[in-house]
Amino acid sequence: MKISPAQTLEQIAAIIGATFDGDPKHQITGLNEIHRVVNGDIVFVDHPKYYDKALQSNATTIIINKKVPCPKGKALLFCDDPFSAYIMIIKHFHPDDFSQKEMISSTAKIGKNTSIMPGVFIGKNVVIGDNCVIHPNVSIYDETVIGNNVTIHSGTVIGSDAFYFKRRPELFDKMVSCGNVVIEDDVEIGAACTIDRGVSDTTRIGAGSKLDNQVHVGHDTQIGKMCLFAAQVGIAGVVTIEDNVTLWGQVGVPSNIHIGKGAILLGQSAPSKSLEGGKSYLGSPAGDAKDKMRELITLKKITEEMAKKENSQPS
Amino acid sequence: MKISPAQTLEQIAAIIGATFDGDPKHQITGLNEIHRVVNGDIVFVDHPKYYDKALQSNATTIIINKKVPCPKGKALLFCDDPFSAYIMIIKHFHPDDFSQKEMISSTAKIGKNTSIMPGVFIGKNVVIGDNCVIHPNVSIYDETVIGNNVTIHSGTVIGSDAFYFKRRPELFDKMVSCGNVVIEDDVEIGAACTIDRGVSDTTRIGAGSKLDNQVHVGHDTQIGKMCLFAAQVGIAGVVTIEDNVTLWGQVGVPSNIHIGKGAILLGQSAPSKSLEGGKSYLGSPAGDAKDKMRELITLKKITEEMAKKENSQPS
Amino acid sequence: MKISPAQTLEQIAAIIGATFDGDPKHQITGLNEIHRVVNGDIVFVDHPKYYDKALQSNATTIIINKKVPCPKGKALLFCDDPFSAYIMIIKHFHPDDFSQKEMISSTAKIGKNTSIMPGVFIGKNVVIGDNCVIHPNVSIYDETVIGNNVTIHSGTVIGSDAFYFKRRPELFDKMVSCGNVVIEDDVEIGAACTIDRGVSDTTRIGAGSKLDNQVHVGHDTQIGKMCLFAAQVGIAGVVTIEDNVTLWGQVGVPSNIHIGKGAILLGQSAPSKSLEGGKSYLGSPAGDAKDKMRELITLKKITEEMAKKENSQPS
Repeated sequence: MKISPAQTLEQIAAIIGATFDGDPKHQITGLNEIHRVVNGDIVFVDHPKYYDKALQSNATTIIINKKVPCPKGKALLFCDDPFSAYIMIIKHFHPDDFSQKEMISSTAKIGKNTSIMPGVFIGKNVVIGDNCVIHPNVSIYDETVIGNNVTIHSGTVIGSDAFYFKRRPELFDKMVSCGNVVIEDDVEIGAACTIDRGVSDTTRIGAGSKLDNQVHVGHDTQIGKMCLFAAQVGIAGVVTIEDNVTLWGQVGVPSNIHIGKGAILLGQSAPSKSLEGGKSYLGSPAGDAKDKMRELITLKKITEEMAKKENSQPS
Repeated sequence: MKISPAQTLEQIAAIIGATFDGDPKHQITGLNEIHRVVNGDIVFVDHPKYYDKALQSNATTIIINKKVPCPKGKALLFCDDPFSAYIMIIKHFHPDDFSQKEMISSTAKIGKNTSIMPGVFIGKNVVIGDNCVIHPNVSIYDETVIGNNVTIHSGTVIGSDAFYFKRRPELFDKMVSCGNVVIEDDVEIGAACTIDRGVSDTTRIGAGSKLDNQVHVGHDTQIGKMCLFAAQVGIAGVVTIEDNVTLWGQVGVPSNIHIGKGAILLGQSAPSKSLEGGKSYLGSPAGDAKDKMRELITLKKITEEMAKKENSQPS
Repeated sequence: MKISPAQTLEQIAAIIGATFDGDPKHQITGLNEIHRVVNGDIVFVDHPKYYDKALQSNATTIIINKKVPCPKGKALLFCDDPFSAYIMIIKHFHPDDFSQKEMISSTAKIGKNTSIMPGVFIGKNVVIGDNCVIHPNVSIYDETVIGNNVTIHSGTVIGSDAFYFKRRPELFDKMVSCGNVVIEDDVEIGAACTIDRGVSDTTRIGAGSKLDNQVHVGHDTQIGKMCLFAAQVGIAGVVTIEDNVTLWGQVGVPSNIHIGKGAILLGQSAPSKSLEGGKSYLGSPAGDAKDKMRELITLKKITEEMAKKENSQPS
């Protein structure tokens, strides 16, 4: 998320009630998660395990719950609960707004020769390109960006909130989503799919990719170009899938996984770690498809042999 | 389901065309399934296997297809088809009504500071608390009760009928659902989820629980507090899930299962029986996660050994 | 798809810019896929592997990318890209139309005593029988045919496009769907289901079948009578499921599979080939349920034995 106009360290400190270490006029121009931060961004860290990673990241301002030395050229904001402080900043610059009463926001921009069918909801600042078809009863949340020649089938939801909660003793604290979804040109999305927006960045469906019905894509996930996902595939948040990947029906991909170019995951497979491109995978957890087929044959053979042995023993 | 005002045994017998054994003025104040019945309720039983269970349950009136002695203080209704008789009673006191023409029923009660976004359907007698957000194109069936601070994302359906059919030679007979859904405070439900109402009682999502997108919850299921269900989890009817349970993506829970407090089911797992709390589970059917991991390693090892042996044999 | 009025070979050749072999007045009355073609139909073939099958099919006109001898009584259309030529014919006789502005098309026919609840979209030429209930926010695409006594729950999508793409070097070419969905009498379809229409023929749900929530049915699939599919079942395109088949939760059926009468697939199973009727199946890939249970027991036993052996060895 961009913060515009840029804020100073002392302005942000006042918003969240934090002390700080650094030049009070130090510039802050955005915020993002650790794996996406750039110069000018704030990041937060509340676990000692990740202190170094956060301090050494591209973020130039770090909200942290321990007094540590400030890295050169950076600034620190100190508070007991960096997670909540981070959310306070999001809410300050990106306040929730659920006040839209019309089905299609007057702030949405819709291209030429694009059909928006009845029952479609289009939120604020949504941009849809040319030659698209948005079928009935689709819901498109605020700030979604859709390219040209995109088809979206009925019941699909684009831009719902990230599933990202912090467990507290008494309740879950919700990370406020301020990112969006970008759907590139020539994408087709089936019926009753759900694509969550990024927490503070973008969830992206690459050009030419085709999603069948009831596919789920989590927050901040990056899908390459010309991927093919069959029905009921579920992809968690913060996943990277390169170009030309094929996922067959009911495949499940957990978060933080990377799937290489041209990989094929057979039906109901689920990787437990990142997978090289150019190969076929099978199983849950997924392995090389041929190895997994051999394992299935082995188990069958052994079971039959044991049955034979038992039957041939004198009773 | 409550029957109000209370009926007498002879009144109910007349409605369903049954003979009876018991005081004609015996009071009937509701009906329910065997695992939920209380004093005053009717239950039905049509299979000898369950006669004793029904006769000894808390139900004080039993519809049964065999002349058996009447337990003391109870009443019996005799007919050939107790299932159909039971449905006749539901339809008599809770007639179907699909006549609503407006998107939001005038009988719905909606709390303060709650946003109902465009395209949302809200049925009769629905109650929604304060500070809720109901995103576009959500459908909420009659008599659903939603607490405070609840968020429901687009495309989600709350209160659809139980999936409960009786196979007859020529067709399936449908059990008429007259229960509802209760969603407690601080719950978040993702996009394109489906939560069925109870057959004659309540399907409940406990306070603070969070459901990701495309989660299914069957009729009469009880979800505890502060549970976390990832995307595409499917939970059948009549399941009990205690507090603080985590179900990862695409987990499937069959009906009549009980999952103890704090249990964790890893992605794509599916229990075949009830599971103790405080442990991690893996596999379909699910077992202790460590045991299941060991089994996967064993199978891999044996397969590799067999391949080595085959390769080292003289051809 | 029917082509009406009938066209001549030379008329079709002109539309797609093809040369031909056959009587210029040869009659063409429709088009269809290879497994459905009848006398008068066009079929296309672009892979040498399928040339003979196409030439020997019931189709009386074949679009082909090689000059082969014309079978007696048939006609051939020659062009470099039969896939694109076929789509040109569909688009000529069945042009896309996403212009509908009203929620219920004025060309739809709706029977007696049928409730269409708020937020329902009904496309052109849809036919719905008597005594049906279409719950809020359902989307029914053009040309769907629904029988009597059918219930469809909220969020469900009937008639979305087939997931059928041809991979080209730079993009996927989409097969244009011109078929429809037929739902026979006494069917119940749960919430948030998706049923794709046939590519050029019909996707059919047989009389009395019951689908739970979030079930997916692919294009051209034929479901028999009195089937029972639990929640989150996914059935690919071009599948045949005979009468009285039970699929438990999260079962996945790949394309081109045939499942015999009365078969039962246990939860999360997925056949990798066609299955005989009258049996129970388990696993992914699915096998006879008893055999699969034995395999699971074998693996557990071997793993435990190996653990014992390791523990008993001197360290």
